[in-house]
Amino acid sequence: MAHLEQLDQYFKEQRDTHLEELNEFLRIPSISALSEHKADMQKAAEWLVQSFDAAGLENVSIDETDGHPVVYGDWLHAEGKPTILVYGHYDVQPVDPLELWDSPPFEPEVRDNKLFARGASDDKGQVFMHIKAVEALMKQSGKLPVNVKFLIEGEEEVGSPNLEKYIRENKDKLAADIIVISDTGMQGPGQPAVCYGLRGLTGVQIDVKGAKGDLHSGLYGGGVQNPLHAIVELLASFRDKEGTIAVEGFYDNVRELTEEERAAYEALGFDEEALKEEIDVPALFGEKGFSYLEQTWARPTLEINGLFGGFSGEGIKTVLPSEAGAKITCRLVPDQDPDEIVEKLKAHIEKHKPAGVTVTVTEFDKGKPFITPFDHPAIQAAGRSYEKVYHVPTAYTRGGGSIPIVAAFDEILELPVVLMGFGLSTENFHAPNEHFHLENFDQGLRVIGDYYYEIESFSKEELKK
Amino acid sequence: MAHLEQLDQYFKEQRDTHLEELNEFLRIPSISALSEHKADMQKAAEWLVQSFDAAGLENVSIDETDGHPVVYGDWLHAEGKPTILVYGHYDVQPVDPLELWDSPPFEPEVRDNKLFARGASDDKGQVFMHIKAVEALMKQSGKLPVNVKFLIEGEEEVGSPNLEKYIRENKDKLAADIIVISDTGMQGPGQPAVCYGLRGLTGVQIDVKGAKGDLHSGLYGGGVQNPLHAIVELLASFRDKEGTIAVEGFYDNVRELTEEERAAYEALGFDEEALKEEIDVPALFGEKGFSYLEQTWARPTLEINGLFGGFSGEGIKTVLPSEAGAKITCRLVPDQDPDEIVEKLKAHIEKHKPAGVTVTVTEFDKGKPFITPFDHPAIQAAGRSYEKVYHVPTAYTRGGGSIPIVAAFDEILELPVVLMGFGLSTENFHAPNEHFHLENFDQGLRVIGDYYYEIESFSKEELKK
Repeated sequence: MAHLEQLDQYFKEQRDTHLEELNEFLRIPSISALSEHKADMQKAAEWLVQSFDAAGLENVSIDETDGHPVVYGDWLHAEGKPTILVYGHYDVQPVDPLELWDSPPFEPEVRDNKLFARGASDDKGQVFMHIKAVEALMKQSGKLPVNVKFLIEGEEEVGSPNLEKYIRENKDKLAADIIVISDTGMQGPGQPAVCYGLRGLTGVQIDVKGAKGDLHSGLYGGGVQNPLHAIVELLASFRDKEGTIAVEGFYDNVRELTEEERAAYEALGFDEEALKEEIDVPALFGEKGFSYLEQTWARPTLEINGLFGGFSGEGIKTVLPSEAGAKITCRLVPDQDPDEIVEKLKAHIEKHKPAGVTVTVTEFDKGKPFITPFDHPAIQAAGRSYEKVYHVPTAYTRGGGSIPIVAAFDEILELPVVLMGFGLSTENFHAPNEHFHLENFDQGLRVIGDYYYEIESFSKEELKK
Repeated sequence: MAHLEQLDQYFKEQRDTHLEELNEFLRIPSISALSEHKADMQKAAEWLVQSFDAAGLENVSIDETDGHPVVYGDWLHAEGKPTILVYGHYDVQPVDPLELWDSPPFEPEVRDNKLFARGASDDKGQVFMHIKAVEALMKQSGKLPVNVKFLIEGEEEVGSPNLEKYIRENKDKLAADIIVISDTGMQGPGQPAVCYGLRGLTGVQIDVKGAKGDLHSGLYGGGVQNPLHAIVELLASFRDKEGTIAVEGFYDNVRELTEEERAAYEALGFDEEALKEEIDVPALFGEKGFSYLEQTWARPTLEINGLFGGFSGEGIKTVLPSEAGAKITCRLVPDQDPDEIVEKLKAHIEKHKPAGVTVTVTEFDKGKPFITPFDHPAIQAAGRSYEKVYHVPTAYTRGGGSIPIVAAFDEILELPVVLMGFGLSTENFHAPNEHFHLENFDQGLRVIGDYYYEIESFSKEELKK
């Protein structure tokens, strides 16, 4: 474990310098969603270039896309050894409402060993750690144990609209053995987690149309279908009272949890009672026969995200509205296919179409679920690296959410994806007072550095998905 | 029928004068909902006073209320004869959107024998006809065949918030044998109608609360109840697929239609196919075993008037909303009681409360249903007066809507209410380009004049409800 001791020594010496450098990065208001920050996006990309150069990465370039640019750099001199593709993003969320920030979002400030700034946790802080891990290894031995490629994009917070095209067009340049992403959270304070799967997403908007205009409920009520009743009847048919989805064939391709996975989740000792209190609900509610973690990580959902029609102001308006609408999304798990599920939703709607109205269905964007097998060496290796630094068992988790670009990596590059994040769910990413716990910054640098040695020990063949 | 010929002669001679006078009334923008028109409300009340005086009414007064004033006048010298209480309103609806009016709303203009102005049909034009009918009889014979009292209010378009109190406090002053109101519509062009019943109204708002804040559907979806699903499940339980209301005891006190009523409605030859095309729905939809007119006039309803929760903007937002809400109203028929129905709704909600959320119920204002028996002499007399002038059979109808103040008259003064209106449903009351068909103005003056003689022939005893 000599390399870990060396890394430890190095990061201790450099801590102040590193924090000052990270603050430079955080001071750039690279908000991808707001066009007035276009110049800041360029500035952040240039800051990365300079940082890549300093770390010893080569072939560093700012690659233009139809949106904000991608920054690339690599080091490919570990002949015969595996190649790690590191993905992250340098763009950040908007900062509204500004008045709720205790310190300005682009003036980083450390309070109570937490670094407060927009992007501190999501994702500049974590991107920075990867760069510094490379720099550390290069400074210490002039080389890396494995090959690396960095792909840091500027549009993650706006849905990565141009990245899939970039990946497709640069498939050879991006070829690697595994992909590592640090943009997810740990299981809790001091509890490292490797995330090996994410749910996919698909959805539809349902629009129900009755009469050509709103009708007076006195004059017409009782003799004409009410689009709100129609949509309620239709929506009620999607699930039973216990939350099981009643769409024919919905569960057909759901990959069952393995015994190992169920045991791993069980071992996390997730406190359902604490969650209940935290979000303040009278009871948790989900598919029978599954724990909360199983329900949210490994089971698909069908949720109404929005429902609208008629009068929503104060008091009463006796209207039979002309239209009603609902937005529905499904979280999908391996091996459900978003296109197939949409077809099943449509068939269900056709079958349960209420009388006296017309129903229109519009598809939303789709994202595939992703999974790297639980027992894949790159997953288990990440767990070991965490354990060497944190000295507690690593949680092997899945994410209930969807990161569409991860599914795109999975699909286009056909590589195992390792999500090893250092954030905490309490760190207000996307909200005022975003911050990053610096103990995870410190420990994470060491974990990442160690992971390069862990991966060095596998052949490219062993890492195949 | 000498009196009808005399009236005819008189109204012909006075037509231009009458129209000019009505235009004066219509030029006053007496919009009760907008405080900037407070002075106009006073001006309209004063216009009525002057008009009452000119007609020969006595004891004319502007009676203050907590809102806009009531205008009262009477003529009580037909000793031993019945007394008719005429109710109407001098306030009008707002005029937005102004740009959709073909001529300014408060500059009356006759086009194609229709008088265009806000209030032309609802209700200034019809109030004016009652005043002129009295004036005609007074001018011709110096007296009226019956006693009359006029009660014209200024807050009908804002829900008559102060009138019930006024009626209660002036019960003796308003004592009469029947109440006549011209504020409803005819059955169609050239087709007079006497309306002898109206539905009542009651309702509740249902609010469903899940977690204390919106939740991410990826992180929590599948393990927490979604308030939108909860409310959909609850709302779906209120009706079956055929529109029959599933609330226990809901139909208990519904007064069944008599054979005479069903035959009378059937005889109207209502064209359901034409309605379907007019409002542009694929099919009509209502309680089995009842015609459209029966469904909307004599059967109760339960309708969702508004439904809201989650995201309603463009595209997708993967949220499990913290809250969802619905507004429900019921149209009630005799002898349903609004308070009892609300209790039944609450019991239903309690029984069908979905798991994992809290449900709150808030009551809306209530209005009782009203009915004057179909065969009451004052109803049948109104029908005869119409027939003498229109020369076609009168339709005996009910209204599907609710006029809360009518139920209040019914309840407080315990008098038979006769709704004899001269408007047409196509006359855009409450909308731009409100107008009044002048043939109904002309014929209506004669109908009202004749009705005084019709009522003269009954004893006060015969008119008891």
